[in-house]
Amino acid sequence: MTSGLPFDDFRNLLNDLPGPDEAAIAAVRARDAQLTKPAGALGRLEEIAEWLAAWTGREPAVTRPLVAVFAGNHGVVKQGVAPFPQGVTAQMVENFAAGGAAINQICIAHDLGLKVFDLALDYPTADITQDAAMDEKTCAATMAFGMEAVAGGTDLLCIGEMGIGNTTIAAAIFHALYGGSAEEWVGPGTGSAGDVLERKVDAVARAVALHRAHLSDPLEVLRRLGGREVAAMAGAILAARMERIPVIIDGFVATAAAAVLHAASPTALDHCIAGHVSAEPAHAKALDRIGKQPLLSLGMRLGEGTGAALAAGIVKSAALCHAGMATFAEAGVSGAEEG
Amino acid sequence: MTSGLPFDDFRNLLNDLPGPDEAAIAAVRARDAQLTKPAGALGRLEEIAEWLAAWTGREPAVTRPLVAVFAGNHGVVKQGVAPFPQGVTAQMVENFAAGGAAINQICIAHDLGLKVFDLALDYPTADITQDAAMDEKTCAATMAFGMEAVAGGTDLLCIGEMGIGNTTIAAAIFHALYGGSAEEWVGPGTGSAGDVLERKVDAVARAVALHRAHLSDPLEVLRRLGGREVAAMAGAILAARMERIPVIIDGFVATAAAAVLHAASPTALDHCIAGHVSAEPAHAKALDRIGKQPLLSLGMRLGEGTGAALAAGIVKSAALCHAGMATFAEAGVSGAEEG
Repeated sequence: MTSGLPFDDFRNLLNDLPGPDEAAIAAVRARDAQLTKPAGALGRLEEIAEWLAAWTGREPAVTRPLVAVFAGNHGVVKQGVAPFPQGVTAQMVENFAAGGAAINQICIAHDLGLKVFDLALDYPTADITQDAAMDEKTCAATMAFGMEAVAGGTDLLCIGEMGIGNTTIAAAIFHALYGGSAEEWVGPGTGSAGDVLERKVDAVARAVALHRAHLSDPLEVLRRLGGREVAAMAGAILAARMERIPVIIDGFVATAAAAVLHAASPTALDHCIAGHVSAEPAHAKALDRIGKQPLLSLGMRLGEGTGAALAAGIVKSAALCHAGMATFAEAGVSGAEEG
Repeated sequence: MTSGLPFDDFRNLLNDLPGPDEAAIAAVRARDAQLTKPAGALGRLEEIAEWLAAWTGREPAVTRPLVAVFAGNHGVVKQGVAPFPQGVTAQMVENFAAGGAAINQICIAHDLGLKVFDLALDYPTADITQDAAMDEKTCAATMAFGMEAVAGGTDLLCIGEMGIGNTTIAAAIFHALYGGSAEEWVGPGTGSAGDVLERKVDAVARAVALHRAHLSDPLEVLRRLGGREVAAMAGAILAARMERIPVIIDGFVATAAAAVLHAASPTALDHCIAGHVSAEPAHAKALDRIGKQPLLSLGMRLGEGTGAALAAGIVKSAALCHAGMATFAEAGVSGAEEG
């Protein structure tokens, strides 16, 4: 590592992120106070309406919600960390295209668009226990691909992924960013147990030990321990901020991409909510580290954007309630009496 | 109270409730094991698919979801327990009809039908601190009305309510069924605080004390402390069981109706799930008493069926995933390898 050039644009972006639209927030609060319900009675739906306004700069509305799923393959599967063979990543991309996966059905249920981006599946990243996953140029190009992937096409972006071996990658990123032991951050993923789980813990510990001298820089964490889909998700989250698109983060692996940005800039995820907390044991702790309270807790651990997509149904409801409810005056409903 | 006749039909029903369809459950489990996802990765969505099959007797499907909102008025508001005037109940029923309430917007978001039933709003039930809310004939007739209200029109029923003063009613029912102190069961409802909240606690304590000798019979709890909308909800939940319609219970007040049935028969709510846990402080405890883990926790406390309707979006997704996902064989996706 000599030149930091390919990452420079991202470092600059992360140092100069746009903030929330305070006027749009104020407008939401003023209208909310007049809607036909007791103050605060819609709980997190009211917070979501404010959040949508803050990051779009207009009245809350969700008209073109999109689930973006990024798929990648990982050299670390050579370490025997995953119960499914690597070919399943490409097979599942085919399944997404054919409409056969869980995410397809949840998109139907909530009328969400779906785009799947496969990232050089035939060229897995390097085995992180042996080498850096990517060189800087590849990592930056993949982030840029993720940025372009979401451009202009949505007003609510759900970020998800697919990639055999990528809960190992995510655990390594969390272990690098947040310390503790490898055991703390490693869980079953798609179903690792016994020897597979032991190898997974060992691989994460060895990977972080190998790269330890370079892990104070979050973008180096991404490059050395990440995968292509993780880099692309980080780029997509960043692009959404620049384009005023609110983001719903999915599960354990998507959160690892988000955590890299958060480590680089503590406000980088202010335009994001966490769609759900996964059954993957360390996910709750990771969400805590990035300061997010998940919207849903349904014991899921599938990825594909499924948790974010389910949460999008809640977000759509929040926008509709804010925009479509009558005011006390319009409906002729009496307000609260003086105590 | 001399004759128990008007309640006899309900007592008989409660003693002879149909059970789950074990063959339909087995079919769901067999298919689920073949779907293109790791076993168990959809968490509660998998449980919901089983639950839908168990109580409909067929493959999980939600084609005609319905939110039924029952509205009633309560003599106990004379005790100064509510911050909104009683006229708001009828005004909100108008607002539902005009499409201006939160529940209208959530029904739009999740494509749910909505029916609102107002129950003699000009004739509030008696003040429970002074008398029984209803005589047995009225209570039984209102339960029967609730039963008929849902007949034949849905394959997923969300149960909600509207009624100024009805969190006082619900708190009294929980206090009667589960003991403890009135303070434990009383919360702010639509926003009671200070003197109003003190009067609410006092009213609940006095009501339960007045009727104490008769509260070992759950249907007597309903008649003496309930309201018309609570009786109608109890009837609707019971009718759904007989007609094989799965039910999503809404918030604090709907749970009080469910709790009466649960006290009468511990299996009476097996066809129900709890849509959400309300911000009303005692709701979590009440759900625990009826043995339900809420699907959502969003800090809401509005009633109207809003929490149940949001949960219906999750239930629809669960049904679609089960029915619409490809199997490993159909999609040509490899399964997990041997350890």
